[in-house]
Amino acid sequence: LQSKLPHIGTTIFTKMSRLAQEHHAINLSQGFPNFMPNEELIQQANEAISSHRNQYAPLGGLPELRQKLSDKFDTLYNHKYDWESEITITAGATQAIFTAISTLIHPGDEVVVFKPAYDCYEPAVELYGGIVKPVQLEAPDYNIPWQKVKDLVGDKTKLIIINTPHNPTGYVWTKEDFENLKSIIRDTSAYVLSDEVYEHMVFDEHMHHSICSDPELASRSIATFSFGKTYHVTGWKLGYAVAPKALMNEFRKVHQYNVFCVNHPLQYALSQILDEPQHYLKLDEFYQHKRDQFLKLVEGSRFKFTPSQGTYFQLADYSEISDLPDTEFCLELIKTHGLAAIPISVFNHDKLQQGQIRFCFAKTDETLKEAAKIINDI
Amino acid sequence: LQSKLPHIGTTIFTKMSRLAQEHHAINLSQGFPNFMPNEELIQQANEAISSHRNQYAPLGGLPELRQKLSDKFDTLYNHKYDWESEITITAGATQAIFTAISTLIHPGDEVVVFKPAYDCYEPAVELYGGIVKPVQLEAPDYNIPWQKVKDLVGDKTKLIIINTPHNPTGYVWTKEDFENLKSIIRDTSAYVLSDEVYEHMVFDEHMHHSICSDPELASRSIATFSFGKTYHVTGWKLGYAVAPKALMNEFRKVHQYNVFCVNHPLQYALSQILDEPQHYLKLDEFYQHKRDQFLKLVEGSRFKFTPSQGTYFQLADYSEISDLPDTEFCLELIKTHGLAAIPISVFNHDKLQQGQIRFCFAKTDETLKEAAKIINDI
Ligand SMILES: CSCCC(=O)C(=O)O
Ligand SMILES: CSCCC(=O)C(=O)O
Repeated sequence: LQSKLPHIGTTIFTKMSRLAQEHHAINLSQGFPNFMPNEELIQQANEAISSHRNQYAPLGGLPELRQKLSDKFDTLYNHKYDWESEITITAGATQAIFTAISTLIHPGDEVVVFKPAYDCYEPAVELYGGIVKPVQLEAPDYNIPWQKVKDLVGDKTKLIIINTPHNPTGYVWTKEDFENLKSIIRDTSAYVLSDEVYEHMVFDEHMHHSICSDPELASRSIATFSFGKTYHVTGWKLGYAVAPKALMNEFRKVHQYNVFCVNHPLQYALSQILDEPQHYLKLDEFYQHKRDQFLKLVEGSRFKFTPSQGTYFQLADYSEISDLPDTEFCLELIKTHGLAAIPISVFNHDKLQQGQIRFCFAKTDETLKEAAKIINDI
Repeated sequence: LQSKLPHIGTTIFTKMSRLAQEHHAINLSQGFPNFMPNEELIQQANEAISSHRNQYAPLGGLPELRQKLSDKFDTLYNHKYDWESEITITAGATQAIFTAISTLIHPGDEVVVFKPAYDCYEPAVELYGGIVKPVQLEAPDYNIPWQKVKDLVGDKTKLIIINTPHNPTGYVWTKEDFENLKSIIRDTSAYVLSDEVYEHMVFDEHMHHSICSDPELASRSIATFSFGKTYHVTGWKLGYAVAPKALMNEFRKVHQYNVFCVNHPLQYALSQILDEPQHYLKLDEFYQHKRDQFLKLVEGSRFKFTPSQGTYFQLADYSEISDLPDTEFCLELIKTHGLAAIPISVFNHDKLQQGQIRFCFAKTDETLKEAAKIINDI
């Protein structure tokens, strides 16, 4: 059997969550909350499952859910997406990203990816014969080296994958970043895939700028979002993609033969609470509080923390503690100290070592306190 | 934008269900039950959602669910699949099929497909640069022309896609069909993708033979199954794939970057009722009763019915009623008579007309009676 993905092993998230379980470690590795979602959402889900909501949903998603999303885009990002032809509900943002790449990439197409990068982009590009052009970002600030991007983008560039707020670094794109991107691609035929699953987790003076809010960029972009992250239900595996009609039409051709449609009752439950914007509007504050709490608890530690600008992740520089490569350092952390984190090198170009690991702070106060105790003891 | 699937429009199922709704027609087109699932399953789902089951499931699926499936394969098909490395839970059987094709097909690979064929196979093959080699089956018996298959299979054959019980014809593969398949591929390097989503809907003297029950064939096969079809919850979008370890390992590489994992709480609910085999063991009888009831109700009609051997579909020959191509006949059926069915030509090679349309009989007695009244009046 000739492997389609010869260089690929099991994702780091699965490996680390499995090890965490084996060693009864506190799991700050894979990104998911360890607290319950909103009660009303649970109740709506129960009602949907107990009523006639257990058969196929429409291909694009439940109309009432897409209509409310369309309103949300209009209100938040000042962009009117047509719910019928420009929004598709997906089996999580990962499936949206995979399908977007499936839709766009032909053999030989070049794809610009900013590294470190969430690990699902590149295998999908590879599967379709695309060529990844990496742009490595530098710790601890992870600013975008725009001159390098400019030098890389050309005739063969089919797609630029961006992610803001950025996993794993927490970097939040500025207005200037978007202006730079726009001027670089203006005279090319490149598309943009904008992964914005952490749109509602942005801290301090930073602000989420959605690609959807820039008409010129939006006209050539597929943007992907996550209900799982916003509503504390990562296990429901529901997300969505938006794109201009012609592009969404091509996206749906792949989508309909990949999953056909996605979970019906839980889409319905989400549609019932989506018109209460309080939940997502307060999320920035909710997670900023968690980040602040976590950083305060670990003030005395030998790790160095540059406060995360967004996402529910916090990087930690361990270079004063150990010379080990980050993957080995993380293994030691689990086995000796009972704490699981994610090494950053696995997301870097050529597995570059930057002395950084990632903690997820989407955890209860109690878990954060226990984790901090360990961190302070290292 | 250069389309990846230039010949593809919206699936016939979406088109027909949409038209059915617009014209308030009785919908016997898209295959789904219009009755409720088992009460205990609903209750288990509600409990899972109300407890700590709302975050990511493991990549391969919930261990307890896979363990019970492993036991089921052992009992029913006499094949011991290792739950950990040889079974993967998917976002419906469609995603399992798409992922299997993604895993196996390189540009230029030939794929044998029996026509009429469920419409998700070929676009996936095309997306990866594979070449479909169709084998057309003939109405009304749809027996497999094995000599033609033999002539088609050669060095370039990467995959043979089979489907038993067969959608849309209801044909159930015999032991001899499997023997023929086996002897044809024995000296080739072809794999088999076996779509067995209707495994528990087989009637009269017919029997479901799973590819899993033949060790030689199973060693080179990915087989796909559906919880949605077996448990009357098509809208939950849960299915699974089984394959020998090395093959499943490659399948998972794609799966983890397509969807990563699938719905957690509903997997749990299914795991809680899977060890009560009554549900699926009685399904043959349950649907045979529906088929018999339906055929009895339409005895006086001008359609000709050859009783379906399996699936929840019944073909109907309308050649005594109309000379219209089947798609137009179906449109007339919806608009003039208020009844939605599926034309078969869309699944045939070169859209061959065979004078056949498909009715889904997974409906309440009341719906079947209303539909029959219309059918008898045509
Ligand atoms: C899909 S599993 C990983 C969850 C996540 O987004 C992360 O930990 O980065
Ligand atoms: C995935 S929608 C179609 C349902 C089905 O399997 C059919 O109607 O053939």
